[in-house]
Amino acid sequence: MKNSENYPLPDVAALLDSALAIKIQNQLDNKTKPIGSLGRLENLAFRIGLILGTEKPELLQPQMIICAADHGLAAEGISAYPDDVTWQMVENFLAGGAAVSVLSKQNNIALNVVDCGVRHDFAPRPGLFIRKAAKGTANALHGPAMSNEDCQHALINGMNIVRELPGNAILIGEMGIGNSSSAAMLLSRLTDNDISSCTGSGTGVFGNNLKKKTEILEKVLEKHKDATEPLGSLAALGGLEIATLVGAVIQAASERRVIVVDGFIASSAILVASKMRPSVLDYCIFSHRSDEKGHSLMLNEMGAEPILDLKLRLGEGSGAALAWPLLMSACAILREMASFDTAGVSRDDDNQ
Amino acid sequence: MKNSENYPLPDVAALLDSALAIKIQNQLDNKTKPIGSLGRLENLAFRIGLILGTEKPELLQPQMIICAADHGLAAEGISAYPDDVTWQMVENFLAGGAAVSVLSKQNNIALNVVDCGVRHDFAPRPGLFIRKAAKGTANALHGPAMSNEDCQHALINGMNIVRELPGNAILIGEMGIGNSSSAAMLLSRLTDNDISSCTGSGTGVFGNNLKKKTEILEKVLEKHKDATEPLGSLAALGGLEIATLVGAVIQAASERRVIVVDGFIASSAILVASKMRPSVLDYCIFSHRSDEKGHSLMLNEMGAEPILDLKLRLGEGSGAALAWPLLMSACAILREMASFDTAGVSRDDDNQ
Repeated sequence: MKNSENYPLPDVAALLDSALAIKIQNQLDNKTKPIGSLGRLENLAFRIGLILGTEKPELLQPQMIICAADHGLAAEGISAYPDDVTWQMVENFLAGGAAVSVLSKQNNIALNVVDCGVRHDFAPRPGLFIRKAAKGTANALHGPAMSNEDCQHALINGMNIVRELPGNAILIGEMGIGNSSSAAMLLSRLTDNDISSCTGSGTGVFGNNLKKKTEILEKVLEKHKDATEPLGSLAALGGLEIATLVGAVIQAASERRVIVVDGFIASSAILVASKMRPSVLDYCIFSHRSDEKGHSLMLNEMGAEPILDLKLRLGEGSGAALAWPLLMSACAILREMASFDTAGVSRDDDNQ
Repeated sequence: MKNSENYPLPDVAALLDSALAIKIQNQLDNKTKPIGSLGRLENLAFRIGLILGTEKPELLQPQMIICAADHGLAAEGISAYPDDVTWQMVENFLAGGAAVSVLSKQNNIALNVVDCGVRHDFAPRPGLFIRKAAKGTANALHGPAMSNEDCQHALINGMNIVRELPGNAILIGEMGIGNSSSAAMLLSRLTDNDISSCTGSGTGVFGNNLKKKTEILEKVLEKHKDATEPLGSLAALGGLEIATLVGAVIQAASERRVIVVDGFIASSAILVASKMRPSVLDYCIFSHRSDEKGHSLMLNEMGAEPILDLKLRLGEGSGAALAWPLLMSACAILREMASFDTAGVSRDDDNQ
């Protein structure tokens, strides 16, 4: 898998409409408020306007896409939870009992759960996409997590799911016992950071167990030291849910959808995608800075400044759902606030 | 005005229900997520549950209260904007064109604007409370901003407005050209910090103008060096909108309502209130860390950790409205998430 161009990945255009950029900035500066006084909300409005190609952006039919899969490496004891929790949580997402279910419902976000490779047979139902590229990854300590074909299959699944979904924004989340290990290894491999600075507690691995987790990940990286190119690394280090998300976000960016990124694992999919299609980053809103150790490093590597900093470390898409109303606010400011002229409000003394 | 007990201020009970606290914490810890993984959202849920006295908190009929007034000190050129902007923005709030109008509408928050002492005669209309304790404050460089009687009047106005409003939560905002000066002086006087560390740019005062603003505030503080007690400081340094908010938040806390605090000026009302009724702080959720220079210092003085950090410096209540959906999320988590037992999800290996 030396050449990522074997994949039928769409192109992603950089956001470069300077005429629109000037129009949006002028509009923000003429709203009834001191210039720049809505701080980062104004940056958010500016960015969403550029992505959607309008100075009156409106976010429509937002789609939460939660990609779930199992990890062969979980057999090495790298997680605090048994791996049955992956399928149990998929059921919980669909039944409405998980954090992401509750938060998506609150914010009118449609919930889509994707079985990208869970070792469990789910009954089909609305909101569930059964798109197994494999029945979980293999144990990456002994061989690649995915074959090249399965990795390609997962990418295409992600692209196709986005094609099927309506709206102009996706929020990305994930579930997969063991997947903070894949994310940590991808961060280390694709950015040349030591694995110990990339590895965190995940769902709750501390002290000696964290040391053991780090040692195992070091061995896995050594085993796959020749996998250095983005897709080769993804296939070698897993997981199927991350690969599916990579396909989903490249497709979404190619269609100029807004992409709202959750925490550490969702961000790792953006990291991989951005190594193949750098302009994907133009379409991403990073919802929060996770409490998971490697996330700040990962965000820095991508030059990303997240919206929230609430010490979340749950994943699922929960942080993306929490930040969603702020994106709605940013758009509402652009669409609905009065200008100085229309409201008859005096300007400041320097801008009479 | 040596004795604040001349005011008919209600008592505020400290939040000390340890049986309920244990119940709420147990409930959070049994939700289908690693313990503590929703970070500060869990603290927020815990706090709101305690305030509302239930482990299934529901926020009902939230009321934005925007207190507006004019400042005699504005004649000294301490603001970037002409003081007509105070009444013009009141009209803009009510017409729906201001940031706080747009954000309140988005989040289903009722908008109440209080004329606490604007130098303008407003036509009565729904959503506007005309409660002038005076027609603006006097210039504090030459004498107290308010008489003791006017200050008392403003406090009682604030208490009465909250009594009239439905619901179990208020959000507090303000408007008043010149009011960042009053807030800075109250911070300096009530916490013994140098005025230069308390004074910021407000709506846009930079460089030499900021230096001039600081020098004027230093003179005002020197003029009123004998006003050291909370209410005496408030009367001497202004403003009418801050005094009205002080009454409002003490009343709200005494009724166990949730109080969502906006930025620097709204926080200064909490600072004053907490010097008279320390338990008021138990009922406050600080919505954001403002970009206004003195705000971090003020938050530290009150031991407050705000939810958002978006470099906002607009006031009006805009930051409180932006943070509101996160309070709704915190309650939804407590009310609607499944527990491990009901969802049939396995626990982590340490908590089987």
